[in-house]
Amino acid sequence: MATTIERMFESHPLPTDTDGSVTAACVEACFECVQCCTACADACTLEDEDMHKCIRLNLDCADVCDTTGRLLARASHTDAPMLRAQVEACRLACVACADECERHGKHMRHCAVCAEACRRCAAACERMAAAIVP
Amino acid sequence: MATTIERMFESHPLPTDTDGSVTAACVEACFECVQCCTACADACTLEDEDMHKCIRLNLDCADVCDTTGRLLARASHTDAPMLRAQVEACRLACVACADECERHGKHMRHCAVCAEACRRCAAACERMAAAIVP
Amino acid sequence: MATTIERMFESHPLPTDTDGSVTAACVEACFECVQCCTACADACTLEDEDMHKCIRLNLDCADVCDTTGRLLARASHTDAPMLRAQVEACRLACVACADECERHGKHMRHCAVCAEACRRCAAACERMAAAIVP
Amino acid sequence: MATTIERMFESHPLPTDTDGSVTAACVEACFECVQCCTACADACTLEDEDMHKCIRLNLDCADVCDTTGRLLARASHTDAPMLRAQVEACRLACVACADECERHGKHMRHCAVCAEACRRCAAACERMAAAIVP
Repeated sequence: MATTIERMFESHPLPTDTDGSVTAACVEACFECVQCCTACADACTLEDEDMHKCIRLNLDCADVCDTTGRLLARASHTDAPMLRAQVEACRLACVACADECERHGKHMRHCAVCAEACRRCAAACERMAAAIVP
Repeated sequence: MATTIERMFESHPLPTDTDGSVTAACVEACFECVQCCTACADACTLEDEDMHKCIRLNLDCADVCDTTGRLLARASHTDAPMLRAQVEACRLACVACADECERHGKHMRHCAVCAEACRRCAAACERMAAAIVP
Repeated sequence: MATTIERMFESHPLPTDTDGSVTAACVEACFECVQCCTACADACTLEDEDMHKCIRLNLDCADVCDTTGRLLARASHTDAPMLRAQVEACRLACVACADECERHGKHMRHCAVCAEACRRCAAACERMAAAIVP
Repeated sequence: MATTIERMFESHPLPTDTDGSVTAACVEACFECVQCCTACADACTLEDEDMHKCIRLNLDCADVCDTTGRLLARASHTDAPMLRAQVEACRLACVACADECERHGKHMRHCAVCAEACRRCAAACERMAAAIVP
């Protein structure tokens, strides 16, 4: 069944991506990541350990994914080099956040769940980058 | 099956909402709305009609839902009167956007899909408002 | 001399606020607050004390101010009850954050500077609320 | 006189940038751009011409600048390759938006003012990129 964003893309008057499924999957992965990273940063501030680095990467990743998701939700054509740079920043933010969250994942379940979402988003960004039309 | 944000809430060290399902549903409805309203505004700028009012309400609704979703994704306790005002602003933004999108929904499918997402989010905000602990 | 946002408002084809100076001042106060609250949350995670509550209110305030600033930067008419609710949420977020930051302001200068910005924004929101045309 | 964000950076317990003035200038340029691009997109939807491309680049630029400004407002160290990619995405978004706005600047003053803000932000991003410590 088509997701809501896929249905939005199908009804767009002039979509860049005729298929739309790669872009839609990346939009959804980005906003799942916004939710997880925002929730994880909040949980981390309540832990006893020094979680500064993890909170910082969570907050950065939430912001970068939010903007990347918004750019991709606009299905019309935009500046390709800019979009490519933003998707690459997003992939890097997700990898950095996942690496750090995995370090805490064994004893902090919120970090483990967050790391999974970041890995999914990093993979979606990689597929997205290959689909950007110059 | 638990959604990703529900799993985040289950692993939070000090959640406000012991159940978490009302908050999780509202977070998901907010970010679905961010995606739809952002996509709808983009589609609207490509239509031949004057879509100014619809674009404006789409953009406002996307921003308000984004912030409301972020506040609710932070599962710890925050200032209750502020949270209540933000959730009410979100409900109003969703109702205003849905009303306008429905006016175009018959001949613009993106507006019809967007209106549905806004109605779902307005309903989720109404349930959320009732669940905010003072 | 006119600020950049005042110059934007002067050149808008159909501004809601014929003067524009009240709205422009609120937009600027909101984005000053986004900057300070974001910086303060980051600084707080590096302090030795338990700063959870302050970080939480900083992050909430940054998000609420960001969205409020964006809504107000759109000078055309929008749904007045929604805008009023958003501006009120912003005032409450700024007051809550300022109250908490002031508790730490004597020994943490970043909290003192942040509290000042929050107070300015709360006052700007109060003036803005009175200027919203139904 | 120090700006508010400069004062925030001076009081940060562990700043990456010992000077802070390059970063502070980029944060301020980013949020000036968020304001101008948001206001310009709104004004553009009220013009008689087809402004789709300009609105699209305005909205993208506002989002990219917002996230870049937030990342830079966090004065502690973060993942350098990610930050570099985000600052480059911001520079490209500003250049693309300025190029398009300048095409309309002669008869639409909001586009002329917006283009100036975008050029300032692109230049600030270029200086910022050179200052990022690996």
